[in-house]
Amino acid sequence: MSDRIERLRELLEEPLLVTNLVNVRYLTGFDSSNAALLVEPDRVRLFTDFRYLEAARAIESVETVQTKRSLIGWLAENLSGRFGFEASVLPWSFAEQLRNGAGSVAGEAGDARRKAGGGIELVPRQGLVEQLRAVKDDGELETFRRACAITDRMFERLVDEVRFVGRRERDVAWDIARLYHEEGADEPAFEAIVGSGPTGARPHARAGDRVIGSGELVVIDTGAHVAGYCSDYTRTLATGELDGEMREAYDVVLAAQQAGLEAIRAGESGVDVDAAARAVIESSDFAGTFGHGLGHGLGLDVHEAPRLSTESSDTLAAGNVVTVEPGVYLEGRFGIRIEDDVIVTEDGIENPVRFTKELLTVS
Amino acid sequence: MSDRIERLRELLEEPLLVTNLVNVRYLTGFDSSNAALLVEPDRVRLFTDFRYLEAARAIESVETVQTKRSLIGWLAENLSGRFGFEASVLPWSFAEQLRNGAGSVAGEAGDARRKAGGGIELVPRQGLVEQLRAVKDDGELETFRRACAITDRMFERLVDEVRFVGRRERDVAWDIARLYHEEGADEPAFEAIVGSGPTGARPHARAGDRVIGSGELVVIDTGAHVAGYCSDYTRTLATGELDGEMREAYDVVLAAQQAGLEAIRAGESGVDVDAAARAVIESSDFAGTFGHGLGHGLGLDVHEAPRLSTESSDTLAAGNVVTVEPGVYLEGRFGIRIEDDVIVTEDGIENPVRFTKELLTVS
Repeated sequence: MSDRIERLRELLEEPLLVTNLVNVRYLTGFDSSNAALLVEPDRVRLFTDFRYLEAARAIESVETVQTKRSLIGWLAENLSGRFGFEASVLPWSFAEQLRNGAGSVAGEAGDARRKAGGGIELVPRQGLVEQLRAVKDDGELETFRRACAITDRMFERLVDEVRFVGRRERDVAWDIARLYHEEGADEPAFEAIVGSGPTGARPHARAGDRVIGSGELVVIDTGAHVAGYCSDYTRTLATGELDGEMREAYDVVLAAQQAGLEAIRAGESGVDVDAAARAVIESSDFAGTFGHGLGHGLGLDVHEAPRLSTESSDTLAAGNVVTVEPGVYLEGRFGIRIEDDVIVTEDGIENPVRFTKELLTVS
Repeated sequence: MSDRIERLRELLEEPLLVTNLVNVRYLTGFDSSNAALLVEPDRVRLFTDFRYLEAARAIESVETVQTKRSLIGWLAENLSGRFGFEASVLPWSFAEQLRNGAGSVAGEAGDARRKAGGGIELVPRQGLVEQLRAVKDDGELETFRRACAITDRMFERLVDEVRFVGRRERDVAWDIARLYHEEGADEPAFEAIVGSGPTGARPHARAGDRVIGSGELVVIDTGAHVAGYCSDYTRTLATGELDGEMREAYDVVLAAQQAGLEAIRAGESGVDVDAAARAVIESSDFAGTFGHGLGHGLGLDVHEAPRLSTESSDTLAAGNVVTVEPGVYLEGRFGIRIEDDVIVTEDGIENPVRFTKELLTVS
């Protein structure tokens, strides 16, 4: 962990106040709902309240400081100097509170008063810790591969053991949670999406009360948390005989995913990788039905840098972990999405996902 | 829902851009990971991206507008006028992006430029929707009582059916998740805390790998999500014969909780209710060991307004739902916490929690 703080220091022009709790965890291993970290050239202070104090004191190479429950208010009263802050995370009013010091309230728009003396001067910074997090070290990659192995086993058992037809989407989602537990995941990385028939046409629909019918497509989007790291797979299963359009759409999505996987290597842009997969769908009968980005980084968060999308400004680097998840969505009818998680290498990818992408039929 | 928007309009001095997703859900019923709501006197616009578009169009009495995935960037390019924004939620850089309009980047600290013409003028506002949410209507209270009934049954079965001694805390936490599912909860409201022996002295420790021994205290802090609303109970169980200090501490916490419950009624301050419970602990042998606030509001979020604590600025109102959860924590040894969820009334409380607060022994 202290190695991560050293690498962060190399990026800093002034001390950085880290308030993103996932970033605090990445830098120190400290996991709480109320903390901040101040990284200065010669010291690192970890601020938290009473509830987490005992755990904080166990963290090596940081000074633990107890604050009030209103942590930002306490910092505004007790810190002074010039600091960077995580501008894309810290709420506007907290930044103003820090800038204006003790007893301040949010002023009028644009009224960014500075304290006359001894206060805090804030410099907005973005993405500094996130840029470190995007490139995984060997230990992180090993944990990620374990999360994938557990997810593979969950999917194997899901298609072997679990009944789909005649059951509610949410009942299948519960089976997924149960299988993760039995296979040794710490917890699901997010609430599983089980989108059957028309529900599958909503890319982020939750598992609901709809009863799964036969001859349908069922989108299963799910991942596991293992020692803090996430997996995130999608497979689309058939419940019996499909019509020709569904089978054709499945093949298009599978080909698009393959094109996306083949386009990935260090140095490629997130826009270009997205375009490689998108072109397959856009040149098919399903043009215009793939309305989201191709993928996203994966790590301590389910969505992190880098992005693969038409809006991305990222360039891939070796050690990135990204999802590749094209889809086709026909409103009111069905959806199809196929998603792997891969490690970016200098000349391509390592794909730790073992579960098949052939169209499987479940009952 | 449209009644809620009407009540919000009565609080507004200018149109409000709602970016807190829980607030969007409260006002419209729309549940997504990327949305904003602009409430103006004569119209309400719901902004979201492709993934949620079909669900958004099903929402009545709002105009659905499709944005890019970068929703705030899209709003910065497409909106103009004077708006309030949720300053304690919206990240600093997003507020600056809206204020500076298309193509802007976060500037230097305090450089709050306005667009020369046609841009967005932002007025920081706080707690407007939260203030509505703090007072529950009859439908919300009925949902909350259902969440409590499920939590009661989960606890009854937990102490009847589940083995504690010799098992890991995380295995008991899994049993809690399983029992919630079997009793009809949508999902746990949060990852259950199962803190045995010294783990219990950390008020927010997660369930870990520690094997529960006999003659220990085990803090169980858990709640259920039912139709969006949360319960949040804590009970502390014994695993066999306790020493005299543990029993004494339990009685002190129970008496403190009773004092807190008796102090609650509409018009009381969060500080005074906290003080009523705190006085019991401070006048006991365990003075100085209750380091957190007495309670918090509960609803769509597990932590919302109003707060019961030494730092609270809230006054209770009929229809508030609050937790009452004093504790005693002896570092390295044990913790005790007892928590009910109650509805504030004009002359006291309604306490829907049925599960006993007597000290139970489990095996």
